Amino acid sequence: MTDPVRAAVVGATGYAGVELCRLLLAHPNAELTVLAAASTAGQSINEALPSLTGLVEGEIESFDAASIAQRADVAFSALPHGASAQVVAELRAHDVRVLDLSADFRLTDRAVFEEWYGVHGAPELFGSAPYGLCELHREFLRDAPLIAVPGCYPTAAVLALAPLLKSALIDPHGIVVDAKSGASGAGRKPGLGVHLPEIGEGIRAYKVGGLHRHTVEIEQELSRIANESIRVLFTPHLVPMTRGILATAYGTARDGADAARCTEAARTLYADSTSVVVLDPGRNPDTAWTRGSNRTFLSYAHDTRTGRIIAQTTIDNLVKGAAGQAVQCFNLMYGFDEATGISHPAVWP
Amino acid sequence: MTDPVRAAVVGATGYAGVELCRLLLAHPNAELTVLAAASTAGQSINEALPSLTGLVEGEIESFDAASIAQRADVAFSALPHGASAQVVAELRAHDVRVLDLSADFRLTDRAVFEEWYGVHGAPELFGSAPYGLCELHREFLRDAPLIAVPGCYPTAAVLALAPLLKSALIDPHGIVVDAKSGASGAGRKPGLGVHLPEIGEGIRAYKVGGLHRHTVEIEQELSRIANESIRVLFTPHLVPMTRGILATAYGTARDGADAARCTEAARTLYADSTSVVVLDPGRNPDTAWTRGSNRTFLSYAHDTRTGRIIAQTTIDNLVKGAAGQAVQCFNLMYGFDEATGISHPAVWP
Amino acid sequence: MTDPVRAAVVGATGYAGVELCRLLLAHPNAELTVLAAASTAGQSINEALPSLTGLVEGEIESFDAASIAQRADVAFSALPHGASAQVVAELRAHDVRVLDLSADFRLTDRAVFEEWYGVHGAPELFGSAPYGLCELHREFLRDAPLIAVPGCYPTAAVLALAPLLKSALIDPHGIVVDAKSGASGAGRKPGLGVHLPEIGEGIRAYKVGGLHRHTVEIEQELSRIANESIRVLFTPHLVPMTRGILATAYGTARDGADAARCTEAARTLYADSTSVVVLDPGRNPDTAWTRGSNRTFLSYAHDTRTGRIIAQTTIDNLVKGAAGQAVQCFNLMYGFDEATGISHPAVWP
Amino acid sequence: MTDPVRAAVVGATGYAGVELCRLLLAHPNAELTVLAAASTAGQSINEALPSLTGLVEGEIESFDAASIAQRADVAFSALPHGASAQVVAELRAHDVRVLDLSADFRLTDRAVFEEWYGVHGAPELFGSAPYGLCELHREFLRDAPLIAVPGCYPTAAVLALAPLLKSALIDPHGIVVDAKSGASGAGRKPGLGVHLPEIGEGIRAYKVGGLHRHTVEIEQELSRIANESIRVLFTPHLVPMTRGILATAYGTARDGADAARCTEAARTLYADSTSVVVLDPGRNPDTAWTRGSNRTFLSYAHDTRTGRIIAQTTIDNLVKGAAGQAVQCFNLMYGFDEATGISHPAVWP
Repeated sequence: MTDPVRAAVVGATGYAGVELCRLLLAHPNAELTVLAAASTAGQSINEALPSLTGLVEGEIESFDAASIAQRADVAFSALPHGASAQVVAELRAHDVRVLDLSADFRLTDRAVFEEWYGVHGAPELFGSAPYGLCELHREFLRDAPLIAVPGCYPTAAVLALAPLLKSALIDPHGIVVDAKSGASGAGRKPGLGVHLPEIGEGIRAYKVGGLHRHTVEIEQELSRIANESIRVLFTPHLVPMTRGILATAYGTARDGADAARCTEAARTLYADSTSVVVLDPGRNPDTAWTRGSNRTFLSYAHDTRTGRIIAQTTIDNLVKGAAGQAVQCFNLMYGFDEATGISHPAVWP
Repeated sequence: MTDPVRAAVVGATGYAGVELCRLLLAHPNAELTVLAAASTAGQSINEALPSLTGLVEGEIESFDAASIAQRADVAFSALPHGASAQVVAELRAHDVRVLDLSADFRLTDRAVFEEWYGVHGAPELFGSAPYGLCELHREFLRDAPLIAVPGCYPTAAVLALAPLLKSALIDPHGIVVDAKSGASGAGRKPGLGVHLPEIGEGIRAYKVGGLHRHTVEIEQELSRIANESIRVLFTPHLVPMTRGILATAYGTARDGADAARCTEAARTLYADSTSVVVLDPGRNPDTAWTRGSNRTFLSYAHDTRTGRIIAQTTIDNLVKGAAGQAVQCFNLMYGFDEATGISHPAVWP
Repeated sequence: MTDPVRAAVVGATGYAGVELCRLLLAHPNAELTVLAAASTAGQSINEALPSLTGLVEGEIESFDAASIAQRADVAFSALPHGASAQVVAELRAHDVRVLDLSADFRLTDRAVFEEWYGVHGAPELFGSAPYGLCELHREFLRDAPLIAVPGCYPTAAVLALAPLLKSALIDPHGIVVDAKSGASGAGRKPGLGVHLPEIGEGIRAYKVGGLHRHTVEIEQELSRIANESIRVLFTPHLVPMTRGILATAYGTARDGADAARCTEAARTLYADSTSVVVLDPGRNPDTAWTRGSNRTFLSYAHDTRTGRIIAQTTIDNLVKGAAGQAVQCFNLMYGFDEATGISHPAVWP
Repeated sequence: MTDPVRAAVVGATGYAGVELCRLLLAHPNAELTVLAAASTAGQSINEALPSLTGLVEGEIESFDAASIAQRADVAFSALPHGASAQVVAELRAHDVRVLDLSADFRLTDRAVFEEWYGVHGAPELFGSAPYGLCELHREFLRDAPLIAVPGCYPTAAVLALAPLLKSALIDPHGIVVDAKSGASGAGRKPGLGVHLPEIGEGIRAYKVGGLHRHTVEIEQELSRIANESIRVLFTPHLVPMTRGILATAYGTARDGADAARCTEAARTLYADSTSVVVLDPGRNPDTAWTRGSNRTFLSYAHDTRTGRIIAQTTIDNLVKGAAGQAVQCFNLMYGFDEATGISHPAVWP
């Protein structure tokens, strides 16, 4: 057995960061060697990440690319967009491979990036990272020095819709994605928007009217599949729970499309993706079935009265929507079996 | 001051029933005189309805129309569809006015009723009850002997979409309603579908593909407004919370439609409806703002990238979606101010 | 009918503040004329207090005692301890009556206050306010110019234990109060301690080992009843819900004490307190039965194996534990019926 | 590497059952070969246990000891008490080793068992099973043919109090255990007591006054440690969350006892127990830190004002309180490292 790959987590004390630590600690081919973060640097790991108390000792470090390069072969950046690009550039300059969980390297069109995110922090690397949605882009991820790990909402939406567009079962125009997320998707920074008394027992939409940045990421990937430029109406909602995303997507059925054919198209497309479960028509997935797991549940229905296909996906936003998908990319990057360390089912109920 | 109207609640130990009791106890023109139910008949009210302990004494009665007729002027039936029709007929035969919260008298087309609900329990009364969505049908409710109180989802969907259809701001075809409800909407009967460990920390859709009976109720009311027969794609979801419905509705914008015009259309249509709040564009309503209240929050957005209007409604499914709306109908039936006893804001947070 | 009492709420945009606004809006003898706050001054009321949108217009004001004195007869201060004392002093200097919801005037021993809270902001008023636990101190509240409204935990603990101490049914020494509160008790200021993903699906204790300031408030009141100085072990817990306090209190039974006698003692003591419900032994109260209501549920059990009495109380921490109790004090202060405007049952479920 | 131990799960479709399946699927030395249950026999595993869809195929079997004996070396019984004893006896008659998660073999005094549970279903085996609290009884579990896996509340209470009694830091008399559990502890059978709208946003106690059967199990184990017969006051509470138990235990400090000494006593006692984390005084454990994990968090505080020690434990009731502890026992039974397959941290947040 070869030596494990030494891995650093930058942004280790956010929710994607702690999830990366959890998954890497259990990974048979990885060794977690560095936990770095900005605002929590200097804190004991036990206090910053209480669930890891007794498993990882020491303090959260400040980011230092040279130091990481000495102790790690690969780094996972779980920093926010904007902050991540420069860190990625420094790590790459030190020849550390990088899995970037931010949005900084996901888009392929520089103008679109600048319109939605502003100035890019490492323009020389823009466009160089393959998009790490493993189920669709496996072949581009092997040996990649830098991978852009997809966003949580795009993962859910694209996995649901890709089979339908690839098999021409729905009209690529007029797609609506109504998505529902747990509060961990809003991150660990306190604010009234994630304050339990304000959101613990109610539901609301946010960034309504095509204002969420994940809109363009979804459109980029669906356009690639559809082979034409398409626009998507995307509405995110905040649900009173910690984890999970449910995407309910609506498209106009093309001739011959029905639930059975959509299901079959998805099963065919994901035949090699052991973490994707395509349910029989009539069963509806629950986000609770994904908690703590990298698995994806899909289901397709046909509303014959209105001629629409309804596609549903559930994922854990912090696992398949962030840390788990990053580890899946890491597995491909290093040639390990894609499911290594992330094949476990959800903690349910 | 005249004598209060004596009111019976039939089906008093379900969630709509207890909410009716709460609202009637506080109503200045009503006196709660009878609490009847089937499966809980004979139980002490205190045990069946713990939150009313100390406020209402005695036992839950079996339903007896003659007995109710002696002690009540009006009855609220909070029984399930199917069970309600016959009870309503008996009450009407004894000249008791009725607010029926079930689906039994909401539809106007007998064939549609039978397709979705089966044989009707009181066909001689079918079609005789005005549809009690007060904001749209006030004039038909005054002095009505029997009112069909709308369903929770249709209330949310129709209030959101009515201004858009009335003002021709959206295409009546192709509307999608993606609705999210708290678990009290599933009723008080235990089952795995409302079991806390199974649904307390996850979200899922149900009756996907146009299978929910409220679909035809929504279509009936929207068709009436649009003056043509329209079909709607309706998908309900179960949210890990007790109360509240959020309806997110999508329609194709017609020329000139934008968020401001939709907002204005709604403010105009609901100018006399003090319980309806139309938010400024950019503010998104939360179901938490409606808990325990009969108020409705609406908001409109325009997605210019896809040419869609997004309409949002939040209501408390047990108040504006059931008991509060029934009391609002009762107010109109008896000529009281429409907001009597139900004008309070939500218990927030 | 006389003119309503004009009421100001200072600290209107915290959770006790908005609850005061809700209750005063519905109070037949009060008129809400001023909403003031510090950090939110200048914000529109609609944005700061979304559930009141459409009911109260205008902006949140900065605190100005002179201005309040012109427009209000009475003020409710829902400011934090420390900040409240000076505001109360200014209001009193302008002859405005005050209901103070902070801890600043609850304690009677200045040394104890300084040990637990530090320097007092208005020492000239220290000791001048009766303690507003109406069920026990009604007679001192009538016409009082300043009332110290009790804390949420002390309200729950003292109401449970008072009958047992008054009737000498338990040993005054060795009492343990294990209390459980919803997250609104932590206030509206964001922080990781009230961040949904951190606390939304778990329970934990805090300030363990007699560190919570309410300890001395509980001891003061119980000592007064027991006629001797007693110490109490108090442990608060944070529960994943928005509202409600359950206090489970343990005392050593004295000879002859059993559940029936404890129940009878409580029913006797609270015979005139219509908002207190003493359950039959064997029924356990739920915080859900109190949401939005000023009612208190009590229950007593006897563990014959260990010779202990277990007393349980449930209240809504924002109503009976704050705003509702303040309105109850206000009713007594002005000679209204004690239950005016606050007699409604919970919004349940 | 030797062949994995073939394992059956009986009662596989309850919550402890599905958790056993999850843990055994990931266990390097076990192979899950049989899933049996009574009421769900004949159902597809995918429908009965949705989170395992795609990982385990086939149907839930009826219990058949002979058939299990052919396909399994060991069986985990996750049946309710009463139902389990006879199943265990049949399995033992076929020479299958058994981990019994029910209460049927936990007690050592037959009279106590009969008083609290009624007639025993396999009296010939009564008293033959060691009590599987590994941290205290490891040496009795190796090679045991039958192990009685402890109850969830006793696990939490005994782990907290054992060090204090062993080191004589508290008086063994007068202990109070106030415990709080998530709703999965009530099992998977629907009922109003686990109905989301009734319990999803409130907290309540149950079986108050020493009525819960776990009382005698706690007493048995603490008496064994204290070397004298002691009685404990135990009050369970139901918390609006799915998983987790927090036990807050109160004892009278003996001379010299303080938080530091209690902490040290626990660290000494659990020095070989890698899954037990004893926090520094001042840190309070959260049930959220244990979700999905077999880890236990302990903390000790000293209330100098009242002379009490407060001990806190958090565990996941379905893991350390059931399935994880059973796997821990299984590891000892077969001579594997005690932490095999169950050393992972919680899924947090």
